[in-house]
Amino acid sequence: MWQLYKPMKTAYRTHTCGELRSEHKEQTVTLCGWIQRIRELKGQNFVDLRDRYGITQLVFSPQYNEILYQQSKQWNRETVLQVTGKVTERTSKNLNIPTGEIEIIAEQVNVLNPAVLPPFLIENDTDGSEELRMQYRYLDIRRPELRDNLLLRHRFTQAVRNYMDSQGFVEIETPVLIKSTPEGARDFVVPSRMNKGQFYALPQSPQTFKQLLMVAGMDKYFQIVKCFRDEDLRADRQPEFTQIDCEMSFVSQEDVLQTFEGLTKYLFKTLKNIDLPDLPRMTYSDAMRYYGSDKPDTRFDMKFVELNEVTKGFGFSVFDNAELVVGICVKGAANFTRKQLDTLTNFVKKPQIGASGLVYARIENDGSVKSSVDKFYSPEQLLQWKAKFNAQEGDLLLILCGKTDKVRKQLSELRLEVAQQLGLRDKNTYSCLWVVDFPLLEWNEEDNRWYAMHHPFTSPKQEDIQFLGTDNAKVRANAYDLVINGVEIGGGSVRIHDKMLQAKMFEVLGLSKEEAEYKFGFLMDAFEYGAPPHAGCAFGLDRWVMLFAGADSIREVMAFPKNNMGRDTMIDAPSVIDESVMKELGISIKQ
Amino acid sequence: MWQLYKPMKTAYRTHTCGELRSEHKEQTVTLCGWIQRIRELKGQNFVDLRDRYGITQLVFSPQYNEILYQQSKQWNRETVLQVTGKVTERTSKNLNIPTGEIEIIAEQVNVLNPAVLPPFLIENDTDGSEELRMQYRYLDIRRPELRDNLLLRHRFTQAVRNYMDSQGFVEIETPVLIKSTPEGARDFVVPSRMNKGQFYALPQSPQTFKQLLMVAGMDKYFQIVKCFRDEDLRADRQPEFTQIDCEMSFVSQEDVLQTFEGLTKYLFKTLKNIDLPDLPRMTYSDAMRYYGSDKPDTRFDMKFVELNEVTKGFGFSVFDNAELVVGICVKGAANFTRKQLDTLTNFVKKPQIGASGLVYARIENDGSVKSSVDKFYSPEQLLQWKAKFNAQEGDLLLILCGKTDKVRKQLSELRLEVAQQLGLRDKNTYSCLWVVDFPLLEWNEEDNRWYAMHHPFTSPKQEDIQFLGTDNAKVRANAYDLVINGVEIGGGSVRIHDKMLQAKMFEVLGLSKEEAEYKFGFLMDAFEYGAPPHAGCAFGLDRWVMLFAGADSIREVMAFPKNNMGRDTMIDAPSVIDESVMKELGISIKQ
Repeated sequence: MWQLYKPMKTAYRTHTCGELRSEHKEQTVTLCGWIQRIRELKGQNFVDLRDRYGITQLVFSPQYNEILYQQSKQWNRETVLQVTGKVTERTSKNLNIPTGEIEIIAEQVNVLNPAVLPPFLIENDTDGSEELRMQYRYLDIRRPELRDNLLLRHRFTQAVRNYMDSQGFVEIETPVLIKSTPEGARDFVVPSRMNKGQFYALPQSPQTFKQLLMVAGMDKYFQIVKCFRDEDLRADRQPEFTQIDCEMSFVSQEDVLQTFEGLTKYLFKTLKNIDLPDLPRMTYSDAMRYYGSDKPDTRFDMKFVELNEVTKGFGFSVFDNAELVVGICVKGAANFTRKQLDTLTNFVKKPQIGASGLVYARIENDGSVKSSVDKFYSPEQLLQWKAKFNAQEGDLLLILCGKTDKVRKQLSELRLEVAQQLGLRDKNTYSCLWVVDFPLLEWNEEDNRWYAMHHPFTSPKQEDIQFLGTDNAKVRANAYDLVINGVEIGGGSVRIHDKMLQAKMFEVLGLSKEEAEYKFGFLMDAFEYGAPPHAGCAFGLDRWVMLFAGADSIREVMAFPKNNMGRDTMIDAPSVIDESVMKELGISIKQ
Repeated sequence: MWQLYKPMKTAYRTHTCGELRSEHKEQTVTLCGWIQRIRELKGQNFVDLRDRYGITQLVFSPQYNEILYQQSKQWNRETVLQVTGKVTERTSKNLNIPTGEIEIIAEQVNVLNPAVLPPFLIENDTDGSEELRMQYRYLDIRRPELRDNLLLRHRFTQAVRNYMDSQGFVEIETPVLIKSTPEGARDFVVPSRMNKGQFYALPQSPQTFKQLLMVAGMDKYFQIVKCFRDEDLRADRQPEFTQIDCEMSFVSQEDVLQTFEGLTKYLFKTLKNIDLPDLPRMTYSDAMRYYGSDKPDTRFDMKFVELNEVTKGFGFSVFDNAELVVGICVKGAANFTRKQLDTLTNFVKKPQIGASGLVYARIENDGSVKSSVDKFYSPEQLLQWKAKFNAQEGDLLLILCGKTDKVRKQLSELRLEVAQQLGLRDKNTYSCLWVVDFPLLEWNEEDNRWYAMHHPFTSPKQEDIQFLGTDNAKVRANAYDLVINGVEIGGGSVRIHDKMLQAKMFEVLGLSKEEAEYKFGFLMDAFEYGAPPHAGCAFGLDRWVMLFAGADSIREVMAFPKNNMGRDTMIDAPSVIDESVMKELGISIKQ
């Protein structure tokens, strides 16, 4: 993928396997690497020797050296060789690889380490299951795809650091052994031997520390930092993940957005050679109204169109009884077959989606509309639908109805599914935006209480503070998310820097004074000694690199991920520990 | 200390407190910061406003604005202000600070946050005890000294990353939740909720992972990474510390030394503007013989001189019965008073040092030698001592005797103490060297077994492998340490890449096959699939930054260190956790 530097000659090699060109011909060189494959052709053995930098073809021929030729028949794939030989121009060049102009006539070979046959093919199109590849991760990483993902990740973090440094941010390490203050996810805890009966916690984020660094006057902080959450690992989560964590003082929301829009553009330019336009901003309320999601995938259109006016009151009771009738227009999809439409209907009826049905309407070539509910609506009424969508001949309308919040979520899922089917979610196309003006609080039905939508340190908008405690739903936050291709890449907020307002916030969240004092007392204390106005954000490194790598999972951009039981199957962790260790720690196992 | 970049204008300020010069005069500017101090002079109030970037003087005068002048009398130190005013050239300039040419005539003030009086002075010469400063670390970091240490640390890590990147190293994150394989220090462990009764461990170093990355073909790896050791925190240790961790494939020891000598020179040049000469190399055996330490402080001379020949057999039974008589020559110290010499004698007799006495000899102005054991040695015999040391008039000889290993350690302590007293351990002088050819193994009297001196993956020198298992003491390792000013900054080794040799090593270390398999099975398995020859090293980031900062403790270069009970007194961690959490984790507290 990238050559990061001019490779260094070492005691073992003069060049790497990605370095030699026809300009090197006639030179005697020494290479080291792994045998990618061996082909026998016309009485010669051709060995592809691989290292991190590329592949170089070695030739073993009885014509040059009978003994080496015979030896070369014995080697397994992945054997580690040190080979000295002469660079020769190939008669039939392979223009697909940078070293394809040359080959090495092997003169001397040193088998540095033999290899048993690997349990799967070390190629991008491997035959290994993910389970097997995780267990032999050190072989998996030899595959070019995974190797390149790790190289990309390195280049990505270098670029982040260079940009942040150029903007005056200081990388400061915050501690890993901190205090347990569960809020949201579960903490991993660490028993303390020196303070028996007490535990450290691993940070879910360095949130309070970065705010303290602002109180400390560090002005601009960042850190690329491991964070930990002991969650059930559904979907694409990992117990440890990496965050680009940032905080700034004496800034407004606008300052933060400008700074990190700059970072975003820099990363796109540096790593993908894409000149990103200014990022559009969408309010949370618009995002929900037009995309049914606070992380809309804006690579494609299909904005929601609300249809209450033109669908209700015509005798179709399903629509009449619904709070909201809402749909999307799928361009050029009028030719979807009945079977395709049934599949979409089944999709929305899945329990995870939960719609009761799907109404569709085709815009025919003559401009008329043919719907699945023709018996309730006249052709003229259906033309009003078409007008609402601004639909053209050949378009397909997909319509759902129900309670506003629910139906928006359902339609959002349908929108993504249809886009997926139509190939509109192209991994090489990027669409970024800021979602802003999030609600400060969200009501939790189960617990019967308000939760902070971001976290309890997020400041309400100045003009909404008046509603805090009385009309919580109305209070908007100075909070923002960066969304790329429908993935929430990160977000942040302007923080509360006033002790009174912070206390009010804890109160609204139902934290007693004692609880607030116990959990966040040190932060509230700190605010007494001159806290500056400050704001910040955090970005998910794993997800961002995953997007840039075109990978399907964050596991594909981590060197040693865990499986969905939180296990590292390669090293077999977690594992039992000695009784004596537990005794020293003052803990015991209790089933 | 450093201005890292051109500061950005924000919603709150037009400039920082370190930015304005006389060229800005007549401009109306807005600054934000903390009140460093207020002085009343000739009916005006002068306020020093401080931020990360510097200090700017504000003027409040009834002549300009009576109300603001009155207000300015009310503010506490450390109050956060936003001030708008006009830049004016000072009549009496302060040339000690970059902004000393100007002051701001305050026109408008916004108290962004009031501050209660801090518990200690926010100045380099603070009146706060370390305990108090740790508890209010967010105030401590406001002191220029600590702030500059953190800025230095940032610049240091940036420089490390730039150098490593330029050399083709890839930064790869290894996991924090790994497997417990206690070897040496104690692991911190983390109970697994999803795998009850099992524990993760926090890494003492990413040793096995970096070796696996070499097996994976990543060729050149590095990482600036947190490591963890649950040790009793005597001396200058922390439970979490940061390491510059590196590994390379297809290299010899010489390649590694060259690469990291390059890093060392680059860091000295970039951060201290020092052109370092090529690093001398000293064998472990010479280091012990001439300095009594494997981390000699070579900022000053005082090499050990062995004196058996010229001291034994003359009737002084203390020397006669000793295995080794050895001393140092302290240049120009013949004028040490009796009291000073008594203090040194008491120093070596302290239980921590354990010598039974100190013999000294002065080289008089007439060239003769006057010793504390004159009655056993003739003047001619004493002249032989002088010759051995190559001593000059005015020098002082300090001599100890005893068992070789012990007396060398004692003399090493004495050498450092004397140098300290003479001011020879100047923090602004740097002396670096490589110590090489460490023994592979060391015998432990208590356990009655051999331990790996570095770690069990260190390779023996090719020519010494023959002695492995039969004459272990004779086996030297391909291991090396970087020593700066008597501090072991880091070290590493060429690793074993051969499974058979690794198995032999485990056997010598007394690990049963089962134990070796349980602890390191995955590494030994990995070696079956084509492990390249590889080598690496690791450097203590905290210590190195401490040296560059001229600090006395690694706590002074960490943002949030723990005290010697492993506690963070600011956030009050570790702490008790809920019963319910322990139940979920399947553990309980056992006294």
